[in-house]
Amino acid sequence: MGLMKSWVASANTVDHPFPLNNLPYGVFSVGGDDPRCGVAIGDMILDCLAAEEAGLLEFDEGPFFDVPFWNEVMEAGPRFWAELRARLQELLAEGAAARSELETCLVAQVDAEMHLPFLVAEYTDFYAGRHHAFNVGSMFRDPANALPPNWLHIPIGYNGRASSVVVSGTPVRRPWGQLKSPDHAQPAFLPSRRFDFELEMGAIVGTPSDRPVTVDEADAMIFGYVLLNDWSARDIQAWEYQPLGPFQAKATATSLSPWIVTQAALAPFRASCPPRDVELLPHLRDTGPMLYDITLTASIAPEGKPPTKLSQTNYREMYYSAAQQLAHHTTSGCPMNPGDLLGSGTISGPTKPERGSLLELSWGGKDPITLDTGEVRSFLEDGDTLTLSGHAKGDGFTIGFGTCSGKILPALPDPYAR
Amino acid sequence: MGLMKSWVASANTVDHPFPLNNLPYGVFSVGGDDPRCGVAIGDMILDCLAAEEAGLLEFDEGPFFDVPFWNEVMEAGPRFWAELRARLQELLAEGAAARSELETCLVAQVDAEMHLPFLVAEYTDFYAGRHHAFNVGSMFRDPANALPPNWLHIPIGYNGRASSVVVSGTPVRRPWGQLKSPDHAQPAFLPSRRFDFELEMGAIVGTPSDRPVTVDEADAMIFGYVLLNDWSARDIQAWEYQPLGPFQAKATATSLSPWIVTQAALAPFRASCPPRDVELLPHLRDTGPMLYDITLTASIAPEGKPPTKLSQTNYREMYYSAAQQLAHHTTSGCPMNPGDLLGSGTISGPTKPERGSLLELSWGGKDPITLDTGEVRSFLEDGDTLTLSGHAKGDGFTIGFGTCSGKILPALPDPYAR
Repeated sequence: MGLMKSWVASANTVDHPFPLNNLPYGVFSVGGDDPRCGVAIGDMILDCLAAEEAGLLEFDEGPFFDVPFWNEVMEAGPRFWAELRARLQELLAEGAAARSELETCLVAQVDAEMHLPFLVAEYTDFYAGRHHAFNVGSMFRDPANALPPNWLHIPIGYNGRASSVVVSGTPVRRPWGQLKSPDHAQPAFLPSRRFDFELEMGAIVGTPSDRPVTVDEADAMIFGYVLLNDWSARDIQAWEYQPLGPFQAKATATSLSPWIVTQAALAPFRASCPPRDVELLPHLRDTGPMLYDITLTASIAPEGKPPTKLSQTNYREMYYSAAQQLAHHTTSGCPMNPGDLLGSGTISGPTKPERGSLLELSWGGKDPITLDTGEVRSFLEDGDTLTLSGHAKGDGFTIGFGTCSGKILPALPDPYAR
Repeated sequence: MGLMKSWVASANTVDHPFPLNNLPYGVFSVGGDDPRCGVAIGDMILDCLAAEEAGLLEFDEGPFFDVPFWNEVMEAGPRFWAELRARLQELLAEGAAARSELETCLVAQVDAEMHLPFLVAEYTDFYAGRHHAFNVGSMFRDPANALPPNWLHIPIGYNGRASSVVVSGTPVRRPWGQLKSPDHAQPAFLPSRRFDFELEMGAIVGTPSDRPVTVDEADAMIFGYVLLNDWSARDIQAWEYQPLGPFQAKATATSLSPWIVTQAALAPFRASCPPRDVELLPHLRDTGPMLYDITLTASIAPEGKPPTKLSQTNYREMYYSAAQQLAHHTTSGCPMNPGDLLGSGTISGPTKPERGSLLELSWGGKDPITLDTGEVRSFLEDGDTLTLSGHAKGDGFTIGFGTCSGKILPALPDPYAR
């Protein structure tokens, strides 16, 4: 396919994350103005509301851009998603007739503040990366029985908290919680000492369902993907998670990259799941390549210091695709809605520099890592900024996700001290 | 206090669930009309939209009743909740001046269809009834270690699925799911064979918070209570729940009674939590009576047969109050929103006829129960209607919740057969 050329000159380089091939969807504001929908093209954002009002983005099913979220576009369904993408590519292609009108609808990304691009209906997080599950199981159980018996048969998932999903750039306050160290007889209420990140991808459900769907149907329901950091308080989790799973350990924040990269933009990068140790039951079986070849990195920057790359992995390392996760999610008849967010689970590769969490990188704190700046880390420290980034490399072009970052603020004083 | 007299005559009996003392909030429709907010009084419903349009329920902060849910009233905060309740009691009291105008705003409950009374923002379910946790722990582990180590220190909770919350009367379809019986080497995809109910109360968060709140603050945030049935597929749960908790086992449906009984109506019935085996940490400690003396029953009616009472228990049997659950829920900084629903966890009493689930009543199917009609049950059968009911008995009056019921429909044919 190659790089598609745009009249927005900054979009036309092999390494730019937002060429005409990409066109990811976000919500932005400039100055104190109300947030509105926009599409990234090169270093600019096409203001969709302005373009709609100028008659350049009008559709029979619209208006779509009088609200500051993409859920209404999602609800319009896959046929409309394709129509919208085709229109945007036409408008922004080299030689487009409407160029001069559209130029008045462009905003520089450097001038824009980004917001959550959609209303998160509900949030589900999975535990579907094999190397992560193996590492965690090896640490807390033993390597011979690292994977729970169900792990190779279903994508293990749990419901997370939608209210604490935030956009990249939002600082994250170190949480308090009830903890019990193995050497104490009683639990205590303390700030988390083992606060961690998890490198994940988020899949966004675009079309609703109220019945069990097949893997193929599920794949078609997915509107797009973002980078996702599932901030995790390991010490709170260790105390609370038996028998009903993580709760407050995962409720402080979940950060998303601000641009929804559509399935259509990612189509050239489809990749297959790894070979199966045991055959999946028919309803979860692979029917085609539904992962994506996306290079993912995590880096950490202590306060006032340059970043150190912690990890580099790939979305292909997942054992289950988002489509398989979504199909499993509907087996009970659970209704799914536009804006439902599915976290992939932590994505780690087979080697140490591919591990997607500090828990794995420092092996539970037993093997702290040394940053390029000389600092040592087992878990996140106050002032650290953790940044995820991701991109897929095509023939002469890049599909980028931008970044998903958050700075750790110190815990509040004891919220219950009076 | 005694029975408060209303000009709606049916409300003035000692056993009626909806006297002037109660005034629970629901959403109803008549014929094919749009759903709207209403208040139960005796056998009637006061149509709040009609009363608002007639100028009888007007407030500076309004309008409130141009939408078919109570979330906007919740968002107006506790001072407004008190003002609204006082106005309604004035309007509906014996001798009210506006009686003749109001009479045109009344609808008979028998003519109304009930809907979910609020938009469920997110749903959290707890495991905070001691007898239930002890029974389940005894069955699946052993009586000496029935309670997990954290159980006496925090209300164990997990996030549930808001999209599958339904109003009483909605039929519930037996789910399919991945199961593995202990005597099979491999899991299979089958309709659940151990589909169960859980007798619970639901607490509805009325006011938002974005920081850790105290137990007293949490108590003041609660708008009201409903009956809640957390339908549970025990066989799906057994296979999926390690290590991250229940997921599809609880995602088919959660049923609510249609009337939100306000905290104010329940005030005369406040009750203390049971004595503590170990002292709670200060931020979760009891600061006053925050449970309620509410008699709760579960009954089952096989298709075409009369009901058998399965269980009678009391909301006082909880180990943790909804206020303690909500305080714990905020410790991580997790934002809470109007319309968040907190399930108490299954409420069982100390004796067998007080058990709030078939899992406990039939001891995991080992000790099936015989109904009054002669049928035998270990778990729910197709065609069974399971009904929860609840009320608090005052001096000369009753505060009733109505009922929360659902009929089990047979599983669909294999949803993946092609």
